[in-house]
Amino acid sequence: MNSFGQKLRFSTFGESHGTALGCVLDGVPAGLEIDEAFIQNELDRRKPGKSEFETARKEADKVEILSGVFEGKSTGTPIAMVIYNTNQKSKDYSNIKDVFRPGHADFTYFHKYGLRDYRGGGRSSARETAARVAAGAIAKLMLKELDVEVLSGISEVAGIKAEKFNYAGVKDSIIYALDSDVEQAQKDAILEAKKRHDSVGGVSRVVVKNAPIGLGQPLYYKLDGVLADAMMGINAVKAVEIGDGCLSAKTLGSQNNDQIRANGFESNHSGGILGGISNGDDIVLNVYFKPTPSIFQEQHTITTTNEEVDFSLKGRHDPCVAIRGTIVCEAMAALVIADMVLLNMGSKMDGVVKYYK
Amino acid sequence: MNSFGQKLRFSTFGESHGTALGCVLDGVPAGLEIDEAFIQNELDRRKPGKSEFETARKEADKVEILSGVFEGKSTGTPIAMVIYNTNQKSKDYSNIKDVFRPGHADFTYFHKYGLRDYRGGGRSSARETAARVAAGAIAKLMLKELDVEVLSGISEVAGIKAEKFNYAGVKDSIIYALDSDVEQAQKDAILEAKKRHDSVGGVSRVVVKNAPIGLGQPLYYKLDGVLADAMMGINAVKAVEIGDGCLSAKTLGSQNNDQIRANGFESNHSGGILGGISNGDDIVLNVYFKPTPSIFQEQHTITTTNEEVDFSLKGRHDPCVAIRGTIVCEAMAALVIADMVLLNMGSKMDGVVKYYK
Amino acid sequence: MNSFGQKLRFSTFGESHGTALGCVLDGVPAGLEIDEAFIQNELDRRKPGKSEFETARKEADKVEILSGVFEGKSTGTPIAMVIYNTNQKSKDYSNIKDVFRPGHADFTYFHKYGLRDYRGGGRSSARETAARVAAGAIAKLMLKELDVEVLSGISEVAGIKAEKFNYAGVKDSIIYALDSDVEQAQKDAILEAKKRHDSVGGVSRVVVKNAPIGLGQPLYYKLDGVLADAMMGINAVKAVEIGDGCLSAKTLGSQNNDQIRANGFESNHSGGILGGISNGDDIVLNVYFKPTPSIFQEQHTITTTNEEVDFSLKGRHDPCVAIRGTIVCEAMAALVIADMVLLNMGSKMDGVVKYYK
Amino acid sequence: MNSFGQKLRFSTFGESHGTALGCVLDGVPAGLEIDEAFIQNELDRRKPGKSEFETARKEADKVEILSGVFEGKSTGTPIAMVIYNTNQKSKDYSNIKDVFRPGHADFTYFHKYGLRDYRGGGRSSARETAARVAAGAIAKLMLKELDVEVLSGISEVAGIKAEKFNYAGVKDSIIYALDSDVEQAQKDAILEAKKRHDSVGGVSRVVVKNAPIGLGQPLYYKLDGVLADAMMGINAVKAVEIGDGCLSAKTLGSQNNDQIRANGFESNHSGGILGGISNGDDIVLNVYFKPTPSIFQEQHTITTTNEEVDFSLKGRHDPCVAIRGTIVCEAMAALVIADMVLLNMGSKMDGVVKYYK
Repeated sequence: MNSFGQKLRFSTFGESHGTALGCVLDGVPAGLEIDEAFIQNELDRRKPGKSEFETARKEADKVEILSGVFEGKSTGTPIAMVIYNTNQKSKDYSNIKDVFRPGHADFTYFHKYGLRDYRGGGRSSARETAARVAAGAIAKLMLKELDVEVLSGISEVAGIKAEKFNYAGVKDSIIYALDSDVEQAQKDAILEAKKRHDSVGGVSRVVVKNAPIGLGQPLYYKLDGVLADAMMGINAVKAVEIGDGCLSAKTLGSQNNDQIRANGFESNHSGGILGGISNGDDIVLNVYFKPTPSIFQEQHTITTTNEEVDFSLKGRHDPCVAIRGTIVCEAMAALVIADMVLLNMGSKMDGVVKYYK
Repeated sequence: MNSFGQKLRFSTFGESHGTALGCVLDGVPAGLEIDEAFIQNELDRRKPGKSEFETARKEADKVEILSGVFEGKSTGTPIAMVIYNTNQKSKDYSNIKDVFRPGHADFTYFHKYGLRDYRGGGRSSARETAARVAAGAIAKLMLKELDVEVLSGISEVAGIKAEKFNYAGVKDSIIYALDSDVEQAQKDAILEAKKRHDSVGGVSRVVVKNAPIGLGQPLYYKLDGVLADAMMGINAVKAVEIGDGCLSAKTLGSQNNDQIRANGFESNHSGGILGGISNGDDIVLNVYFKPTPSIFQEQHTITTTNEEVDFSLKGRHDPCVAIRGTIVCEAMAALVIADMVLLNMGSKMDGVVKYYK
Repeated sequence: MNSFGQKLRFSTFGESHGTALGCVLDGVPAGLEIDEAFIQNELDRRKPGKSEFETARKEADKVEILSGVFEGKSTGTPIAMVIYNTNQKSKDYSNIKDVFRPGHADFTYFHKYGLRDYRGGGRSSARETAARVAAGAIAKLMLKELDVEVLSGISEVAGIKAEKFNYAGVKDSIIYALDSDVEQAQKDAILEAKKRHDSVGGVSRVVVKNAPIGLGQPLYYKLDGVLADAMMGINAVKAVEIGDGCLSAKTLGSQNNDQIRANGFESNHSGGILGGISNGDDIVLNVYFKPTPSIFQEQHTITTTNEEVDFSLKGRHDPCVAIRGTIVCEAMAALVIADMVLLNMGSKMDGVVKYYK
Repeated sequence: MNSFGQKLRFSTFGESHGTALGCVLDGVPAGLEIDEAFIQNELDRRKPGKSEFETARKEADKVEILSGVFEGKSTGTPIAMVIYNTNQKSKDYSNIKDVFRPGHADFTYFHKYGLRDYRGGGRSSARETAARVAAGAIAKLMLKELDVEVLSGISEVAGIKAEKFNYAGVKDSIIYALDSDVEQAQKDAILEAKKRHDSVGGVSRVVVKNAPIGLGQPLYYKLDGVLADAMMGINAVKAVEIGDGCLSAKTLGSQNNDQIRANGFESNHSGGILGGISNGDDIVLNVYFKPTPSIFQEQHTITTTNEEVDFSLKGRHDPCVAIRGTIVCEAMAALVIADMVLLNMGSKMDGVVKYYK
């Protein structure tokens, strides 16, 4: 239940305040060059503490590969990666020990499991997504061999929307903004909320370029369904759109259909997926993040013994989780696409025969 | 790849113009009373041809149980159900035989599998969802024993939105409308599009009432992730929201958090799910359907040999697939919840000990 | 839990005295020619009532394909096959209704599920293996395209052992004997036991010829492990050997190692599998069947209310289940090998790149 | 593909000469007391270098828990355990770098993956089984709460068979012998082979005591099938028997059936499993290990470039892998039984209702 994927399968482990977190990535084809610097670089993109738009909590997030790589190449065996927690210094948790933080998973974990790791989010902390980014980096290396690219950026913060999507410019923006024209307004909204001890939501837009036609295993491991699962499973995500998404429900068929010419589709309302299978066009997703539930205003809550209290959280938290979240979206999209690439290999009998003969 | 679920697992088979379609539902606990009339009634709700708001194509959709039930009760063995196709009369397919219908899966299936069932949607046809509704009916019977209810209705058609959600009234509306005040306007929009040989999109709203706290297997079989997969995998769905969904991304943390009192949450922005686990509140989903791609206006397309043609579809099609789609959403939600109920049973060691001792 | 396989996955349904039994085979590559006569012929090989060495119960065992095949070829969608039960005539079950038959699954099913299909073996009946043979036939068709062949025969009955293994001769033996020199003695042993209202055990030997090197997904979907699961899961099987099997435990390393020369291995003690992966040599299995538990002698047993009774079974039963069982072994071996063939396709990165570029 | 189990699922990683090996155990119910000393003790039982009957290679095999345990109890989240390799000192591998060791997986891994970890067995080394023993120890702790016990010992070495099975005495035997009367002869056989630079095979006998009736998910996750897979997947295992195993094939139905009385079965030929489901009696397995393929005599082999060579292995190796293997058998049996215990929990509808209401 802590695993994702069918042929490229990753399992993660670890809690925010435990010894370490990490993952085991199973199914990487043998012979792939494993560029450790690239993996670390991806982790650094997600790492907290890089600016005032993120939590001030510092984590080294140094990844160590324990297995599955020999002389710089994948061997076909599971690649285990571990990230030791360095910033979980013993501190006073009495503030939150018995209190459910509103908007967090404390309440549901306590009732599901009957006990509580009161030191922080534990397993439900977004800190776990570091392991996804490490695994996603390897998926990206694999996709690169097929010239497939996964890109993303922030398209919306606190209702301020990008008008254009400049993926190449994302690397120059500290908030991974897609539209430099609205970037400053988005930044202002974040800092304004932060000043008021509040938080804001945001939207990540993800695009997969040059994916082969035919990815997706209908009817219950469809490309869009699995992407939706992968994205909705990221901390704080509350909605996922493929292509035009919600807007499709307001339009007419004559507007929404992507008509076809010999050299391709005339539009891409579908977001590159038809019948759960990639159609060769850009695969496009929008991923909606709620505002960080960790805010520093007083809120109503209860204790583990059902006592009502008014509660103010302390600590350091991201004012907008979508920012670092977009890196996780990219990683998850890369993992899904790489899995689908491998799964698709037995679709046609003549392909199977050609492979073996 | 044609299966869904972990402990309650269903596999479907069949094409729109083949001999039969059906499903095998595995993991139903033994001793459940199987009310066949209820199952048939659920199928009748989804059945086409009931009104001018649906395709005129008639299908009996009579379900036959082949196994897994003895003396009116489930035996713990797989329940196979079959629905024979009765309306796939031999007809002239020359019109569409070599042409990709825009907005359909013809193009992607052809490229993935290298061949084509040219008689209609084949496996990708929404006709397959009859099998989901049959399986979902059994999931509903199982949930009923736990007093859990899954309801749904149409909240939006062609941009015309419900202001209130009256689930009890849905059975009295031929378009399953949640808000009788906007129902007529929604109907008018459908018929207007139909008259123009066009189609409209719509939104289904699904609610699960009285689900136990604790459903959902973090971190990669989360309740919201699996629901998103289940819904996005339904034909024509392009977006899924949990709770406030997209709106969450525009609000502040102080607005979006559901504060807690001794008798429950003060609001339900989260849609009943925190950290991927049910919190005891109503589980709320919005499912966005694109307009039916089958329209009767001329469109650009290509043939299987990449020749450009201008093409007009003939036949009978739903002017708004969301209408019948909402019954499928209900079925899928019921299947997901029932699966999660069974999966959750080993969460606590004392529960395991109590079960066996 | 009623499914087997990863990329080629089959799910079976049905009981001995229900309406029908069948299977859904998912993952067959598109474009495979589906020879229905071959499938029926495989079923006929397993069909009861062909001679005095089998149960006298007659079953037509006519297979009907419901989906997944169009114009004689697989389409890549699930292939559902159904076999209606024709010989489950209403009869008097009062003899066995409340009594657990020794050596049968009645006792365990009753305790696991809390109820009982008292009309016969129900789901646990070997009748279900007809569905495996149908699925296995398609796996064989797929393997044939790769020149891989799965053969089997009876090597031992009631302790009388074959000295030579003539797979080509099996089709000429009514008991599928591998060694015509001991065939008559084996037949005599069966009829002798039958005369005494008793039954005998036997051994099936299975060989897979020309399987590619590299099949098997270490470490927990190994070729030998999965074959062992597949064989042990066949009704009445109590032991499985790979290659020299039990004998290996008595020998020295210097005797048991298969030394290697440029043109292949010098011996095949390993049964074609090293480290859970096929080595290109013949894959060899021995599958041990216990004597049919259905005998017509008086035995001690209890009722569902724990009352002790002395009980004599009536009816028609195979005196040696291994005979028809060998056809099931073949089918299961074919399904495992075909699954492994598909799973192996993403093992090397250069193979993946070659497939897509 | 490096994972095992359905509800209690473990994934292992690591190679014999890499940085570390370990496992992630997912699905452990929350609230189980995790006795780390017990886990280490189980590892110590499998650890090499304890006597002349084992390889002289020393490994500390210290296990470190990275996640999933808080204040001494399981939290319901994945338990990751890691064992760093301490004895993989840089040495000269030129002897085996390009040579396939007969009886080993070198040949098949090389062909499957196209490259080679030439430093030793790599992933295929039995060293990986340390991770299984760590996971199995936790399964044992879980089973202990249900009073279920998994025991094992060596019943046969080099053809010298135990006449009695004294599980309690195993802890006093350095070779885990079940029968002290033949222990010395078994030891002599091992040392005799060792002296001749050869190796011997052996048999482990495993018993599960007090397992609940009803374990096993028919028809394709049967208890006997899964146990067979689990055992056959252990390094060097070539045959698995349930209960009387191979012997069953030689007997009559009247001898082999376990007749039933009000207080239980009159015999246990079935090994505690009927129809793939536990019947409440002892579950009994025999697991046959081939002789260690690593011997120090000259053997024929080839290089990775298909050149014929005569080759003598150097190094330190177990003269009889069955000895330490029996500890792995126990661990795997415990993991299977614990998984089945969790899976069985939704079998009956009244059990489900009782759990939730």
